[in-house]
Amino acid sequence: MVSKNIAPLGSVASKRYELLTLGDELLLGLTANGHLTYIGAQLGQRGVLLQRNVTLTDEADAIAEQFRESWARADVVITTGGLGPTCDDRTREAVAGVLGQRLVFEPEIAAGIEAFFAGRGRIMTENNLKQAYRFERGEVLPNSNGTAPGLWVEQDGKVLIMLPGPPNELQPMFAEQVVPRLAQRGLLLDRQAYVQLRTAGIGESALETKLLPVFADYGDGLSVAYCAHQGQVDLRLSSPSGQLSFGQLDEVAAECERLLGEDFMGYGGASLAQVVGDLLRAQECMLAVAETATGGLLSSEFTGICGATKFFAGGCVCYSNESKMQLLDVPECLLEQHGGVSAENAVAMAVGAAERLGADYALAITGFAGPCGGTHENPVGTMYLALYSPQGMWSKKVHYPGPRATVNRRAVNAALDWLRRELVRTQTGVTRVAPCGGQE
Amino acid sequence: MVSKNIAPLGSVASKRYELLTLGDELLLGLTANGHLTYIGAQLGQRGVLLQRNVTLTDEADAIAEQFRESWARADVVITTGGLGPTCDDRTREAVAGVLGQRLVFEPEIAAGIEAFFAGRGRIMTENNLKQAYRFERGEVLPNSNGTAPGLWVEQDGKVLIMLPGPPNELQPMFAEQVVPRLAQRGLLLDRQAYVQLRTAGIGESALETKLLPVFADYGDGLSVAYCAHQGQVDLRLSSPSGQLSFGQLDEVAAECERLLGEDFMGYGGASLAQVVGDLLRAQECMLAVAETATGGLLSSEFTGICGATKFFAGGCVCYSNESKMQLLDVPECLLEQHGGVSAENAVAMAVGAAERLGADYALAITGFAGPCGGTHENPVGTMYLALYSPQGMWSKKVHYPGPRATVNRRAVNAALDWLRRELVRTQTGVTRVAPCGGQE
Repeated sequence: MVSKNIAPLGSVASKRYELLTLGDELLLGLTANGHLTYIGAQLGQRGVLLQRNVTLTDEADAIAEQFRESWARADVVITTGGLGPTCDDRTREAVAGVLGQRLVFEPEIAAGIEAFFAGRGRIMTENNLKQAYRFERGEVLPNSNGTAPGLWVEQDGKVLIMLPGPPNELQPMFAEQVVPRLAQRGLLLDRQAYVQLRTAGIGESALETKLLPVFADYGDGLSVAYCAHQGQVDLRLSSPSGQLSFGQLDEVAAECERLLGEDFMGYGGASLAQVVGDLLRAQECMLAVAETATGGLLSSEFTGICGATKFFAGGCVCYSNESKMQLLDVPECLLEQHGGVSAENAVAMAVGAAERLGADYALAITGFAGPCGGTHENPVGTMYLALYSPQGMWSKKVHYPGPRATVNRRAVNAALDWLRRELVRTQTGVTRVAPCGGQE
Repeated sequence: MVSKNIAPLGSVASKRYELLTLGDELLLGLTANGHLTYIGAQLGQRGVLLQRNVTLTDEADAIAEQFRESWARADVVITTGGLGPTCDDRTREAVAGVLGQRLVFEPEIAAGIEAFFAGRGRIMTENNLKQAYRFERGEVLPNSNGTAPGLWVEQDGKVLIMLPGPPNELQPMFAEQVVPRLAQRGLLLDRQAYVQLRTAGIGESALETKLLPVFADYGDGLSVAYCAHQGQVDLRLSSPSGQLSFGQLDEVAAECERLLGEDFMGYGGASLAQVVGDLLRAQECMLAVAETATGGLLSSEFTGICGATKFFAGGCVCYSNESKMQLLDVPECLLEQHGGVSAENAVAMAVGAAERLGADYALAITGFAGPCGGTHENPVGTMYLALYSPQGMWSKKVHYPGPRATVNRRAVNAALDWLRRELVRTQTGVTRVAPCGGQE
């Protein structure tokens, strides 16, 4: 177990945090709501489950109405965006109205903004001075990466934190100024709010059925959440009521791990490729990959890991039969006889990749990811996986429904999980059994 | 112009849409809120600006309270998540209470779920039958990619749409079932609420400076928004007040396009790889790629496009010097003399990829994406790009700050934009000029 038993959760869980994110670009789906991901994770790692996030347009009335509601309900309200110099930045005024506070001009902020522009050889336009106002009974959070400072207010036994929208301004301000202030006031814990177990190769309902006997002993005090994504399911254990101590949560987690066996991937959020990479590194083995339809998705899972040269030899994206022959020595007669989407070709690709790149293990994926292509025998969604290892080589036929990106992602995850299980068995010295599921 | 002048915006803008996204994993920052991005974009493309998105925990009371509020305020409420088989899926019951409807067991859904499991050779666990309930006065949206069906209710002159959480189930359901139903009821337009121009290779402030003279003529009626991401900037033109007709918006857009020249990539959201693919297809040319640190990211940009075999020959991920020699015939002496992260190696990789795969064009990327690695001469963030074309071959040294994923993404975008400009010039018969920026 990574997590440690430090304090009962109740002391923090009883505090309500709400986050208001402002900006039409979020509601139009043009920008992902990275502030929720960042702030939610920062709070979660410090014992707080953010209770609500509301994303709304830049209209002053809507902002005032939503802020009034959140301020009445929550202990800590965080807003992002709408503090800039232009006419559509109306958050400050809307919030001041609800708090019954005046905005006062702060010459020090104004001087800071002027210095920011001067330092970049630019002239400050008048509208930037809009950012030099703070609440009359509130503090300023200096912005070292931009012009709009953050604002901090304590009123009615609650805390309001207003942060600028650009992530490169918000994130350092949150980490360096907001977190320490919240911690000082006892509004954060020094451990995360939950224990997360990641599983692979088992469906959500089968997972629950397997684990229900464990949870039955703990009743309402234990909150269990499942999050399924493309062949992986995350299991999150927490006790929002504070009835269970962290030590008890850790015990539940250990019991789940035991019952899950090979389906258990790890604690926290490590990806399949990271887990596979760690196993390869520990066994001092190298991996090569070869792929067609997934076109680099499998490779990029590994090369996204810093220091992957230690275990990843390389990969080939072979979209044409010519490239299979040229790069991986797949025999022409094999392609003529069985076609590019076949178990035989998948194995030949894996062998070619391992031999060409001098690797101990190789994974290959070939198939029809759709929406075009496919045959009667191998309809869209059919993928052949192959695994080459010191113990032998195997292929597996799988079929996934859904759009191209989903089929590719599922195939990549299935291949990675296959190798993961193989490496776990090698590590633990279990005699090799046939890989589960699919055609062998 | 792709977009057409059909109707004034007001007719739809007056309808309020709200989106409730459920799941602790969103509030803990463990999963990005992709449903907001997807649904927001889908609605935006059909004339609707989503008014509000609320993300909340799986507690039944909180769901009921928020749904009551949104239902009172909006014309269309969409919920995502919380329809699954496990104990934390409580949305259906919470919403039924607010609507004053009973949930009824639907044998047809149950049969569908059983068939779903049977088709995959798996046994259905009992908890899955939870998903077989629908509202007594409501319809079912069949789920062809999973077990939990969507739900559709029309009541009090409003529409409620409840969708399952997994994106590969939600997205086809939304596109194939929800959009046509909303359109039938006149709740969507057949053009987007804004005109979007995508640019590449020009910064946000330079872009604004270039275009300000165009916007000055239109005053307050025109709303202009910029959205910058990794070497691309999207420009969004709209008229929320309805002062400008769609015809006028199209005129502004055409004027921007003219001023932007080669920096203009296209209307809408086509990726750089899609634009490059279209240009290659039109010129009947094939492309090969070779990469190190970006490890398949460049390849996967192309293989994510259906029918890419028409223009994409394949790619190599060469993480070790051995693989550069084996797969791309990079001479050993070149690697010894200049190292793997060098202009010389980038060019050799591009040539090798083009020759091995018989392609007309090739792109290569090699560099230090960080956080580890790097040298005094080539610190972390340094990437060498190479372009091989019928007109010759070039290399370019670039440097990007930020984390590994950002460096890789910027490098891939820069390489793609380089090739895009080259292909645009070939197409328009412009005499080749040196590629802009960087070291040649």
